[in-house]
Amino acid sequence: MKDILIVTDAKKIKVLAEKTRVDILSLLRDRPMTASELSMILNKDPSTIHRHVTLLKETGFVEVIGKEGNEKLYGRSARVFLITPYENDANALVAMDKIHTDEALRLYKIFIEAGFEISNKKEFINLIKKFLSNFESLSRDIIKKLEGVEINRLEFIRIMVLLALINSPKLQEEARRLKELLGLGD
Amino acid sequence: MKDILIVTDAKKIKVLAEKTRVDILSLLRDRPMTASELSMILNKDPSTIHRHVTLLKETGFVEVIGKEGNEKLYGRSARVFLITPYENDANALVAMDKIHTDEALRLYKIFIEAGFEISNKKEFINLIKKFLSNFESLSRDIIKKLEGVEINRLEFIRIMVLLALINSPKLQEEARRLKELLGLGD
Repeated sequence: MKDILIVTDAKKIKVLAEKTRVDILSLLRDRPMTASELSMILNKDPSTIHRHVTLLKETGFVEVIGKEGNEKLYGRSARVFLITPYENDANALVAMDKIHTDEALRLYKIFIEAGFEISNKKEFINLIKKFLSNFESLSRDIIKKLEGVEINRLEFIRIMVLLALINSPKLQEEARRLKELLGLGD
Repeated sequence: MKDILIVTDAKKIKVLAEKTRVDILSLLRDRPMTASELSMILNKDPSTIHRHVTLLKETGFVEVIGKEGNEKLYGRSARVFLITPYENDANALVAMDKIHTDEALRLYKIFIEAGFEISNKKEFINLIKKFLSNFESLSRDIIKKLEGVEINRLEFIRIMVLLALINSPKLQEEARRLKELLGLGD
């Protein structure tokens, strides 16, 4: 399993615009599982799960990492998938919107748990979504270049922070508003 | 092992201003090891290694995760340590300077490998170091608040990117110069 997998191909990204497949990847975060286990936990027909897992395998999100009895054991191909479409494909955009909504909600919860008082939840969520989408679109040429390079976790975090810095001249309005919503002074 | 461990305590950070201890943490990235293994690989006296490992354990960077024969097996307490001092302690600053130099060099190599032509290596390294140091100092109040919150890898990356955005109004000069050094147009 890789640390980080950068995925820019719209055909692959639109595979994630489907809840069961996202749930499968999420479950495999904990540990590798067989199709039967996934089927039981997700309460879905084994043949349905089989079809989804096959698609996830073909698009490189999942890999066979061994056997349990006579069943294949599936694992994630990377700990973190960085999903960032290179083209403006409509289906990929639908998938990205779902991914960003989910991420924005989790970020909201984290900031609340850390003790921030966010004055306007809805605006915060929308601002984060808009920012993530702009950030990805501004960064995609650089991310595309980095796609094949071996990068570890910490390096990856630093690179994302540098990308945010590089793109920040075009994101000053978002920066100002985000600061206000988090109740941060100057 | 945690995913992410945020370390802001200067007393803990200055423990990392010592090459052998950094080497130990680096080796444990691959797999857990005993003091004898570490001693053999690093070609250091077992008692020296024992002293360093004990200090790393006391400061929470390393934990005993089991036994191999009658030796303790040591592992990292987290996959990623986010080291960011909360106070301006002189020893912690020395440790941070070493950490930033190392990170800046690795980032330089990654960008070169990805096909960027960086016009001035020395200025790039210094700019990254200056940026990381400013970024950490601007972010430390927020990071301190987040210290105890359970955050996974992807959330953590997103939060770092948001912090870069929030602080970007004060980092526009760096943003502009970094873009130039990477040969990126508008």
